[in-house]
Amino acid sequence: MAKLILSLLSFLLLSTSIFAVRQASWQQGECQISRINAEEPSYRLQAEGGVSEFWDHNNDEFQCAGVSLHRHRIRSKGLILPAYHNAPVLAYVVQGRGIFGVLISGCPETFESPPQQQSRESIRTDDRHQRIEHFKTGDIIAFPAGAAHWAYNTGDEELIVVAFQDTSNNANQLDSNPRSFHLAGNPQNPEEQEQGGRRQEKGQGSRRQEQGQGGRRHEHGNVFRGFDAETLAEAFLVDEETARSLQGQNDERGHIITVKSGLQVISPPLRREERPRNAAAAGNGIEETICSAQVRQNIDKASRADIYNPRAGRLTTVNSLSLPILGLFQLSAARGVLYKNAIMSPHWFVNAHSIVYVTRGEARVQIVNHRGQAVFDGQAREGQALVVPQNFAVVKQAGEQGFEWVEFNTNNNAMINTLSGRTSALRGMPVDVVAASYQIPREEAERLKNSRSETLFFSGGQRAERGRVASA
Amino acid sequence: MAKLILSLLSFLLLSTSIFAVRQASWQQGECQISRINAEEPSYRLQAEGGVSEFWDHNNDEFQCAGVSLHRHRIRSKGLILPAYHNAPVLAYVVQGRGIFGVLISGCPETFESPPQQQSRESIRTDDRHQRIEHFKTGDIIAFPAGAAHWAYNTGDEELIVVAFQDTSNNANQLDSNPRSFHLAGNPQNPEEQEQGGRRQEKGQGSRRQEQGQGGRRHEHGNVFRGFDAETLAEAFLVDEETARSLQGQNDERGHIITVKSGLQVISPPLRREERPRNAAAAGNGIEETICSAQVRQNIDKASRADIYNPRAGRLTTVNSLSLPILGLFQLSAARGVLYKNAIMSPHWFVNAHSIVYVTRGEARVQIVNHRGQAVFDGQAREGQALVVPQNFAVVKQAGEQGFEWVEFNTNNNAMINTLSGRTSALRGMPVDVVAASYQIPREEAERLKNSRSETLFFSGGQRAERGRVASA
Amino acid sequence: MAKLILSLLSFLLLSTSIFAVRQASWQQGECQISRINAEEPSYRLQAEGGVSEFWDHNNDEFQCAGVSLHRHRIRSKGLILPAYHNAPVLAYVVQGRGIFGVLISGCPETFESPPQQQSRESIRTDDRHQRIEHFKTGDIIAFPAGAAHWAYNTGDEELIVVAFQDTSNNANQLDSNPRSFHLAGNPQNPEEQEQGGRRQEKGQGSRRQEQGQGGRRHEHGNVFRGFDAETLAEAFLVDEETARSLQGQNDERGHIITVKSGLQVISPPLRREERPRNAAAAGNGIEETICSAQVRQNIDKASRADIYNPRAGRLTTVNSLSLPILGLFQLSAARGVLYKNAIMSPHWFVNAHSIVYVTRGEARVQIVNHRGQAVFDGQAREGQALVVPQNFAVVKQAGEQGFEWVEFNTNNNAMINTLSGRTSALRGMPVDVVAASYQIPREEAERLKNSRSETLFFSGGQRAERGRVASA
Repeated sequence: MAKLILSLLSFLLLSTSIFAVRQASWQQGECQISRINAEEPSYRLQAEGGVSEFWDHNNDEFQCAGVSLHRHRIRSKGLILPAYHNAPVLAYVVQGRGIFGVLISGCPETFESPPQQQSRESIRTDDRHQRIEHFKTGDIIAFPAGAAHWAYNTGDEELIVVAFQDTSNNANQLDSNPRSFHLAGNPQNPEEQEQGGRRQEKGQGSRRQEQGQGGRRHEHGNVFRGFDAETLAEAFLVDEETARSLQGQNDERGHIITVKSGLQVISPPLRREERPRNAAAAGNGIEETICSAQVRQNIDKASRADIYNPRAGRLTTVNSLSLPILGLFQLSAARGVLYKNAIMSPHWFVNAHSIVYVTRGEARVQIVNHRGQAVFDGQAREGQALVVPQNFAVVKQAGEQGFEWVEFNTNNNAMINTLSGRTSALRGMPVDVVAASYQIPREEAERLKNSRSETLFFSGGQRAERGRVASA
Repeated sequence: MAKLILSLLSFLLLSTSIFAVRQASWQQGECQISRINAEEPSYRLQAEGGVSEFWDHNNDEFQCAGVSLHRHRIRSKGLILPAYHNAPVLAYVVQGRGIFGVLISGCPETFESPPQQQSRESIRTDDRHQRIEHFKTGDIIAFPAGAAHWAYNTGDEELIVVAFQDTSNNANQLDSNPRSFHLAGNPQNPEEQEQGGRRQEKGQGSRRQEQGQGGRRHEHGNVFRGFDAETLAEAFLVDEETARSLQGQNDERGHIITVKSGLQVISPPLRREERPRNAAAAGNGIEETICSAQVRQNIDKASRADIYNPRAGRLTTVNSLSLPILGLFQLSAARGVLYKNAIMSPHWFVNAHSIVYVTRGEARVQIVNHRGQAVFDGQAREGQALVVPQNFAVVKQAGEQGFEWVEFNTNNNAMINTLSGRTSALRGMPVDVVAASYQIPREEAERLKNSRSETLFFSGGQRAERGRVASA
Repeated sequence: MAKLILSLLSFLLLSTSIFAVRQASWQQGECQISRINAEEPSYRLQAEGGVSEFWDHNNDEFQCAGVSLHRHRIRSKGLILPAYHNAPVLAYVVQGRGIFGVLISGCPETFESPPQQQSRESIRTDDRHQRIEHFKTGDIIAFPAGAAHWAYNTGDEELIVVAFQDTSNNANQLDSNPRSFHLAGNPQNPEEQEQGGRRQEKGQGSRRQEQGQGGRRHEHGNVFRGFDAETLAEAFLVDEETARSLQGQNDERGHIITVKSGLQVISPPLRREERPRNAAAAGNGIEETICSAQVRQNIDKASRADIYNPRAGRLTTVNSLSLPILGLFQLSAARGVLYKNAIMSPHWFVNAHSIVYVTRGEARVQIVNHRGQAVFDGQAREGQALVVPQNFAVVKQAGEQGFEWVEFNTNNNAMINTLSGRTSALRGMPVDVVAASYQIPREEAERLKNSRSETLFFSGGQRAERGRVASA
């Protein structure tokens, strides 16, 4: 890890703008977080082709960190209609596969049907459109603020995507409420998430939600509805009926529709497993434009781990060095896996908040503030999200089933400092300072510094073992 | 346009700090703009040599965008006294011509009278001072925050300048109220703009203003008045009477004075039309210091248009690529001209608010928020200003007289995405996605994508024409 | 100075992110500072090895500037226990000497005892730890946000350090309250600073403090206390008793302890006066990583002055050009010395707030806002701190004992514009503009421009002298 962090840090020193500047409530002096919860979604948007579930972004932790989170569950042949957001979005594919497109004005329509094909196939006419891309389980996809995008489930199983929206991002000059500007359809009104596929704790957040003020929800609407149909007809040079179809007035399918016949698009064949890695290798972050920018990276495979302990777990990160567009976003992400009973070293994030979404298993998590109080000490389970504020100390202990998560971090090169282990703060202190600080003999201080020789992931049950050895 | 935007975007990817970070109210979660108005100035500062008219920066739109706007009308031989501001200012010269100087400590006094001249002319003594520059109609001038500047009307007609002050700018560490620190004179108290050369709607903003709280106005004062006269005498090594003249206690001329005998300064001869373009060519943005930085660029000439449609209109932009100092400001500007009945494609700004000041004619403008509601649908006329928030969709339809404007954008490389036309979001989507999204047949989807082949400016009346052709 | 400022400015133009973006209350439109005070600390934390005194960061000026200030007084052999903060800290060593260490995960333990030494000395065992450094009077030391650090007084006299914490810094994503995360010990509760070594004015700030709300104080706590002891034992692979010693439950020594036997660490011999300068020369800001980054620079020596007038005083600055890590911090500092009766030219900071701490003597200081009102006109004395807001004009006149201070500025290249003197704004104006502005004859305008030929520091008593010459 030393090398990894070193390289991040040397990069740090070369860039004066590395620290994300954020507009979250926390910076306005209003956030004295004394309690953090492991949260589940509190309301949902039903649609023909699936459902979107939203965490209440007015919950203290989300509000204070200036972020929001939602989860799409898209059925087979479901198409989530094109929309853009007022903040950059990082999406993690929990399950399934599909295709997506990001629409940016001025980028060329580089995917086109060959001229000869047109003449032979009478059903399918000529088309050309901007780049579209395949995605699958374990992919992180980065959507720039203000760039419209759509996605389609090409698989047979349900597609599950967790989307993190950084409303405090520099790219957002509007307020910190998450806003979705839809380019089609007619999003339904959100409903409370009473029951559903997942358990639901009725916490403070959802109660607040019930008191009304629907306007504080993640807001959705089709922008074409605000324009005069005649103006649209003129602008698109079509008749008014077609123009009205843009507005989706009587469309009751919601924001995710089902394409019964399946979606036909021009798309290169997917070379399994290989294409994404080649693409990543090709992107050097220098010569590419936003039109050809890499926006996707798989962080699921163990073979790509940045930190790996075969007895305890692994961490795979994606940041501005591996996916340059994250430099623009000032965000990064990581995929963590802790094996049964393993421990992730007590640590703190130096320069980022971290939003953890549990993809599998459960863990006991303890989070401590600057007063030395535990603001969270409990279980985090599959499907829950947990905010770990900057500088707060955190420790994770996996349960019997292990613990897997994805984390979204509010800095493009999020750095952690560990308290224990081979690269920890205690290791960096002279043994005399340790001894004096904790009022312990020098030999005990040495043990405190050196007993754990692992780096970030610690195998569990060692103390009991060592205890047996020692007492033997 | 594709190429233009591409080049901007490739630049984007190279700079992680490209997104302006702003401190506007919007980011503090307090701005739920449900109505935007085309605004006129609401109060004015009268002075001997002219008048300054201020838009109420407490109006919701201005407050939320974190900007302010005012307009100087300076009579012939009028000198606006030196002052500096707590935020960068972009000024657009609507009419007239003059000279200006920006004063920066440590920059050399490079304009000096030749030694021999001194001996011959007994009236005029030796002088040397910092660079001064000529300006004329159509110029954008960039004044850094905290840099004192003055300007003088050398022409015979009234000089009209619209000044945009970005109080939410990074360069401003004070609060978001616009503040002017005058180095001379005695600015008068502002008065309500009841009548005057322009019409005046008594909107909510001006009512709020009337309730008092003069301290929330754009505030002005001569900083020398706060110092002890004796201290000034010592600091300037002059007698106390001269020191008191710095404080302008009994000066009733206001902040714009008339220099009856005309102002005599050392200034290179103005080579009409040519000098500004040469100067622009010389600046490469790398080797220049702020002392020699280009701060002015003309955006009025059709020959310099970035986007041009001979049947519909043109757009001329100035951003950090053409005027490097705008990189520091994180601002840009553009001059737009829409011909009679022409349409500007429905579009949204990806990364900026846009403040539009109408210089001639009128247009129907529609602005739509994320709920699909029109927050503005009305006429914008000469002399009015209109805030278009980031991500909000907007369409402009010129009236019978055409429509001309200058826009100030809160990003040094403001990007737009169009909804219709050759480089639009809809063009980028596969035709199957368009058909499924809007529940229309494939052929209609193709028409929706491809009917408008123009880029940003659409010639008017084409639908009627085409309709006639189609029905023929 | 011209050259100095020029080089700073040319640098400016090359970096678009040079203007610090800050989250202070000022930017939220809530700060209408009408009165500034010269403040002294208002509460203190007593400990075994010394005392820390805190300025009330809820005082309007500190709150508005988004900064906080405290002063450590550490007795001989006192060790201030390791802690990290939610914002970058600049510390100035007012008196004394010592050693310090900054702990960053992943940085190598480069200080190690030689293997042979271990075998010979039975008392001292092997150790290795991260770099530690000597410091002494006049040093500025930069501690990154989130990086734990400790310091130890190796001298015989009291070590006095003034520490400036920039809570509005980009690096802080928490709120603007200063927070200290201790890694050892048991910080005591703060107490009002009623009497003590320094005088104490009972201002508004301390009154507010008394009303309770201890939570609004600079908050301290040992993060280990929030973790379960058993979890700590497992994470450190030690027994629970040792784990509990991390939590310091019954430790009554406070945050500064005394190491009676003296602290033994591995440390290179201190070459007096030379080592620091060599180190500074070695750092070129390009190839170094944060692990080897220069974090310390002496600004006390007259021989290193950037601005020097042998009859009036000197200024020594440290900014991102001389100490590259300050580019990350977006902060700078300076050491000023004004001789008896000398004047520092009336000036304003273009792009920074300036927090002045008086190290010796006293001066009459006048600070003027944009309304031309003096928000401060009084004496600033040794041990007091004064906030000079961005753009506010300020003049300093040293008393009979002279005036010495250190200033912390909220921009990594803080720029000043002077009103009087050789590089002033008035010098930059054409003499005709000066004459017209102040309604004075041309000759008087020339005197106003040119009488003071010094740059920033003006020798005192000259006017009286010159008056005598003139009347003679």
